[in-house]
Amino acid sequence: MIPTPALVVERTALDHNIATIGITLPGAKLRPHVKAFKCTALAHRLVAAGHSSFTCATVREVEGMALAGLGEDLLLANEVLDRNQLKRLAAVEANVTLAVDSSEGIARAAAVGILNVLIDVDVGLPRCGCSPDDAGRLADQARAAGMHVRGVMGYEGHLMMVRDRAERISKVEHSMSKLLRAADAVGGELVSGGGTGTYDTNTWANEIQAGTFLLGDTQYASLDLPFRQAVHVECSILSLNPKGWAVANAGLKALGMDHGNPSWAGGEVLYCSDEHTTLTAGEGVDLELDQRVRLDPAHLDPTVARHEEMWLVDGDDVLERLPIDLRHW
Amino acid sequence: MIPTPALVVERTALDHNIATIGITLPGAKLRPHVKAFKCTALAHRLVAAGHSSFTCATVREVEGMALAGLGEDLLLANEVLDRNQLKRLAAVEANVTLAVDSSEGIARAAAVGILNVLIDVDVGLPRCGCSPDDAGRLADQARAAGMHVRGVMGYEGHLMMVRDRAERISKVEHSMSKLLRAADAVGGELVSGGGTGTYDTNTWANEIQAGTFLLGDTQYASLDLPFRQAVHVECSILSLNPKGWAVANAGLKALGMDHGNPSWAGGEVLYCSDEHTTLTAGEGVDLELDQRVRLDPAHLDPTVARHEEMWLVDGDDVLERLPIDLRHW
Repeated sequence: MIPTPALVVERTALDHNIATIGITLPGAKLRPHVKAFKCTALAHRLVAAGHSSFTCATVREVEGMALAGLGEDLLLANEVLDRNQLKRLAAVEANVTLAVDSSEGIARAAAVGILNVLIDVDVGLPRCGCSPDDAGRLADQARAAGMHVRGVMGYEGHLMMVRDRAERISKVEHSMSKLLRAADAVGGELVSGGGTGTYDTNTWANEIQAGTFLLGDTQYASLDLPFRQAVHVECSILSLNPKGWAVANAGLKALGMDHGNPSWAGGEVLYCSDEHTTLTAGEGVDLELDQRVRLDPAHLDPTVARHEEMWLVDGDDVLERLPIDLRHW
Repeated sequence: MIPTPALVVERTALDHNIATIGITLPGAKLRPHVKAFKCTALAHRLVAAGHSSFTCATVREVEGMALAGLGEDLLLANEVLDRNQLKRLAAVEANVTLAVDSSEGIARAAAVGILNVLIDVDVGLPRCGCSPDDAGRLADQARAAGMHVRGVMGYEGHLMMVRDRAERISKVEHSMSKLLRAADAVGGELVSGGGTGTYDTNTWANEIQAGTFLLGDTQYASLDLPFRQAVHVECSILSLNPKGWAVANAGLKALGMDHGNPSWAGGEVLYCSDEHTTLTAGEGVDLELDQRVRLDPAHLDPTVARHEEMWLVDGDDVLERLPIDLRHW
């Protein structure tokens, strides 16, 4: 028995998710985002399915992917301004491309010998990215500094949860029109964008940076997507109160909570505290002390980042330990 | 310069908090809860201030405290039913006391040779703890199994955030009356309860399990407590958008989010995503690329648990690295 709390990954659901996304996004059409699972063992499974270019969010993710022999085409889809972090990135033995959205960022990256950049464009999400009108100027600056400009990226993160499919398509088209305008000014081969929520509706980007599709969470499960919930937080019942609630041994330190409480197929989640989740069992569900229950996280990425490992399972059989080796910065 | 995102701890605020709680709760009146800071280097500072009995929430915390020579009196204030975890606990070379709230828990603990227990009592928080009326029976069972019953504990966590002081006192008195009733039936020397929110209003427990007082968070800062915000998430500005927002490189993976967004003294926090916080600067605040900013977490415990280390600082001077060595389970 694996110790709890623990992340468990159902092999059949994992395989289904990899096979399913590959139908729409074969090979390099998918640039899987490792921030969602932070695990090189899972990245190797994606390579086996034909996806060998990856998206990273941190320098540590780039370093870890390179160390694991997964450095064929790593995009750090995030700005880096710190000179020490830039030096670490330049020292990685892999094919690395860095997102830039400012003159200062380009100058600092060039100064440490970063060779490949992508111009990050603001396509409507209030986060990183230059104005589409400024992208061409930044590309010129990068080329003048001797860098290879591989193209543009823009993440329409504000549109992932648009529930109506037609509305989602229309809004993504509007957002991607900004990216395509920037792409015209920038040149290069990559028009990178998208995520799990728009993996099949963003037909304007030529590669999709999806990550959550692999393991799933309850927020994405509320959309009309064909992926299955593959990861759960397995925990054990510690206490049964005669007033009707039960307490499981996974809480805020085992879960990402920004999208709310986890869900439990066996009943209701009342609330989470640091090391506990208080539950009430649904009709016909009897809980015993030390019984295992599996919670579904509301937000995958910050849940995975709380754990040292996942366990690949087939029902109750544990097949393999999957170290979460890309955590931290 | 320390790499960001990073937890920084202001030495003067830390010293103030330790000195302040010691006035009300000298020596063993305080049983500091290590779940809030998960760091044996900070626990050593509490020992130096006279507090050498500690509260833990996980087996890993007990093991780590013992390894660090801090095993004089460790209370695992949480139920453990799993036989492997119980064996680990029994193997710890320290003076360990385990919370129990069920016959099954007592039987399993006795079976692996756990020597000391405390009866955990439901005092109104919907979590662990037996009925006050059942506490005496459980104590008898534990003694019959050859265990030493050190007393009772009950955590009035539902009362930590009662804003009005008089109302807080009255509600804590009602809650603790249940614990005192159980204590009469159980015997033993310990009546353990309380937390940072009730550290000076819970005068019924004879030791207080406070932890957050040490480093602070914005939720506790909203109460009438004399502690200072000692910990911050230091991050760097990655992107400045001409529309008026800035993006810092700390997000959901560097913060506990169950109590909401972090706060920033320099302006507003718009939202957090996995590796970013989007900010707008207040009037008169000018942000530059790569500038450091410090965010205050809304909830301390799950924020600390996301990091590998804290850095003790005096203003901008870094004094010491504090490994967060008690993480995970």
